[in-house]
Amino acid sequence: MSKPTIGFIGLGAMGFGMATHLVSLGHPVTGFDVWPPTLERFKAAGGAVATTPADAVRECAFCICMVASAPQAQSALFDGDAAAIKALPKGAALLLASTVSSAYATSVASQLVDLNRADVQFIDCPVSGGTARAASGELTIMAGGTSSALAHGHELLLELTAPDKLFIVEGGVGAGSNMKMVHQVLAGVHVTAACEALGFAARLGLDPVKVYETVVGKGQEVDGWSWMFENRMQRALKEEYKPAASALTILLKDLGIITSTGRLTQFPTPLSSVTEQLFLSGVSLGWGPDDDSSMVRMYFPIPLSSVQSSNSSLSEVQRTQLVLDLLSSIHLCGAAEALAFTSHLKLDMQQYFTLCADAAGASWSFRTHGPEMIALLSATSAPAASTAVSKLTLEKRIERLEWVLVEAKNVGCPLYMGGEAMSQLSLARRRLGGEVDEVKGIIDGFWGTK
Amino acid sequence: MSKPTIGFIGLGAMGFGMATHLVSLGHPVTGFDVWPPTLERFKAAGGAVATTPADAVRECAFCICMVASAPQAQSALFDGDAAAIKALPKGAALLLASTVSSAYATSVASQLVDLNRADVQFIDCPVSGGTARAASGELTIMAGGTSSALAHGHELLLELTAPDKLFIVEGGVGAGSNMKMVHQVLAGVHVTAACEALGFAARLGLDPVKVYETVVGKGQEVDGWSWMFENRMQRALKEEYKPAASALTILLKDLGIITSTGRLTQFPTPLSSVTEQLFLSGVSLGWGPDDDSSMVRMYFPIPLSSVQSSNSSLSEVQRTQLVLDLLSSIHLCGAAEALAFTSHLKLDMQQYFTLCADAAGASWSFRTHGPEMIALLSATSAPAASTAVSKLTLEKRIERLEWVLVEAKNVGCPLYMGGEAMSQLSLARRRLGGEVDEVKGIIDGFWGTK
Repeated sequence: MSKPTIGFIGLGAMGFGMATHLVSLGHPVTGFDVWPPTLERFKAAGGAVATTPADAVRECAFCICMVASAPQAQSALFDGDAAAIKALPKGAALLLASTVSSAYATSVASQLVDLNRADVQFIDCPVSGGTARAASGELTIMAGGTSSALAHGHELLLELTAPDKLFIVEGGVGAGSNMKMVHQVLAGVHVTAACEALGFAARLGLDPVKVYETVVGKGQEVDGWSWMFENRMQRALKEEYKPAASALTILLKDLGIITSTGRLTQFPTPLSSVTEQLFLSGVSLGWGPDDDSSMVRMYFPIPLSSVQSSNSSLSEVQRTQLVLDLLSSIHLCGAAEALAFTSHLKLDMQQYFTLCADAAGASWSFRTHGPEMIALLSATSAPAASTAVSKLTLEKRIERLEWVLVEAKNVGCPLYMGGEAMSQLSLARRRLGGEVDEVKGIIDGFWGTK
Repeated sequence: MSKPTIGFIGLGAMGFGMATHLVSLGHPVTGFDVWPPTLERFKAAGGAVATTPADAVRECAFCICMVASAPQAQSALFDGDAAAIKALPKGAALLLASTVSSAYATSVASQLVDLNRADVQFIDCPVSGGTARAASGELTIMAGGTSSALAHGHELLLELTAPDKLFIVEGGVGAGSNMKMVHQVLAGVHVTAACEALGFAARLGLDPVKVYETVVGKGQEVDGWSWMFENRMQRALKEEYKPAASALTILLKDLGIITSTGRLTQFPTPLSSVTEQLFLSGVSLGWGPDDDSSMVRMYFPIPLSSVQSSNSSLSEVQRTQLVLDLLSSIHLCGAAEALAFTSHLKLDMQQYFTLCADAAGASWSFRTHGPEMIALLSATSAPAASTAVSKLTLEKRIERLEWVLVEAKNVGCPLYMGGEAMSQLSLARRRLGGEVDEVKGIIDGFWGTK
């Protein structure tokens, strides 16, 4: 049986890989992009091409939209005679794979109704995983929509995802985008924490390569490890900022979705907000197209390879511990912010945990403390505090972070994320006292409403 | 009757004015400073000079120490044979007028005991008011100590202060420094808010001069006014950053006292912490010796006089309102942080209000909402919500600040202080709902422990 035809809108770094992968599986794929040379490349890879979104999707059973932002999606799908929806055959499926806000995903559904195109099987299905996985069909996909639409698109979604990496998110259209968004809370916080920590290490006169090896060397068992640190800081060490593997502007767009959805749903996102302001500063400095790992320059403006000794009087072991403590303190607060937001949005926290614990959002803190955080955030069951993992008291966590902030001041290094973590932990202590453990402390003391 | 003799340590911008003022009143004053040209100037002004702290205070009834920091005070007072305390006559008074942490002021008292110099009448008395008022004897002074010491130094303190500007702070040694410190919470937050707001105005394509006039034009009746905005932004408009009227490093030192005292006394200082990180970034950029108003460059890196139109689609009136809303939102949260800290330290909030409402820490928000905040923070009385002033609901305040943050994002302007204010207001709404008024909202919802 021949594979269904696909109109593919947006052949950027991710879209090109996905579209050529579908070609390789035998789908007839017609691609559209605003950048003509890409169309030539796609033709060379076995695809057909179109000069408008409408022409790309005409007579296709599926339309996949993988443009960079909601405004681009709006333009490609709805605006004017060349837009895709009007040309889409009756009963065809629309897969919106771009990272957009759930508010925009929902608006697509209502626009379809307004245009009398409720026949379109619409799936809100942002992806994660990077360009290599896009091209090999091993993405992670978070899909929301009606049961009918999800059933319709299921096989195609499986073709794009790695085993067990297709997450069907309960909650209909918008739920997929929300799930991607809360994953990006971790991604954004961890990238920025990594840059802050490595910049701090350099200010402390530590060899950044050694610090990198300490954080990632023992696999993922180090309190302070994150997937983002391991992945992004390789590039920071080599100062491979151009061309970007993932540009500042991409994560800034995701951060904007987080903070605006937070405001729309009346939820505070303090660490994400600090991250967003830092990225706005980075863009102001002209770093927009650069790799997001280059945010390390906010903390250590000269090349990392030129680190010299600092005026810190602490031993190398002590200074390295400060860097690890900074990372684990931010990760603890970041895990709490991400899970509290997930809970607030009524997403399945267990599914979220499964997704993030083995994805770009992973950190030691999230994996280790996530289950207990979920129990604390669930009204349904009295949480059994985990005793299997080492936890600090809130007091001890604050004490460690205080040493970090004091030494950062000594060496003149700003720590925006560390400072925000301290504010949160300190507010939690003000409510619950310092003897409570750090996990219960941050969840009940900072995020609790009682 | 002849005036008592004074040994004066530290003839910097403030100390020189104070010392020459005392000379003009007829005191025999012997000055010491590490910078020889200053000694020449002091001699020309009618003072005597010494080459060590010990020689300055020998046979003096009073020693005034007005150096720049605690380490300098420690060195001048205690370290080695040339230090002041060993040479100080029995029963003389020591006035520590430098801005130091209360922890350091307390340590001076214990060091005196350890040296068997409990006979020294020690007064912890930081000052405020700037160099002109120092020279005219019209400073504000916050003095703590034993009753005996305070009685001993009273006349001299009066000679240095403007009418009604000598604040005797209950709580003994350390209380004066704490009172100065909580004043500096307002000062630091307001300077940074002013820079953020004027930088934002420039990004919005507004004429900074017009915005300045709007904020300060109608005297102090504008919601958004602060003494710091009025004072500092004059220099920002002229870009008079060198030489500094008040250097970045001075306020950074004060911010360090705030955040470290917060940590020591287990109190969160979130807005002060953001301010401190921003100032650390400023120093990293080489701006340490520059005027603190130059922090506007964090938000608008090119000269303010070169503002061109922006890509904002809002009217001039709307954009100006955004700037005012940014200021008043930060000032509201800043007033709450300052007063909650004052309450936490068991300082007299009413005295604090009297002091700050007519000093460099003043703002419209502090003056207008301070009394109700004090009532809410006082356990003693059920606060009568003020109905005389216009207040927004928490919901409405958040809505206004949201427009600010959305437009800032549109024009690419980071708003670190605005973002932090949003996080606080949003956390408060999570606890209390949005229908509560903004004053009760921030005090009970964010700072409340219940």
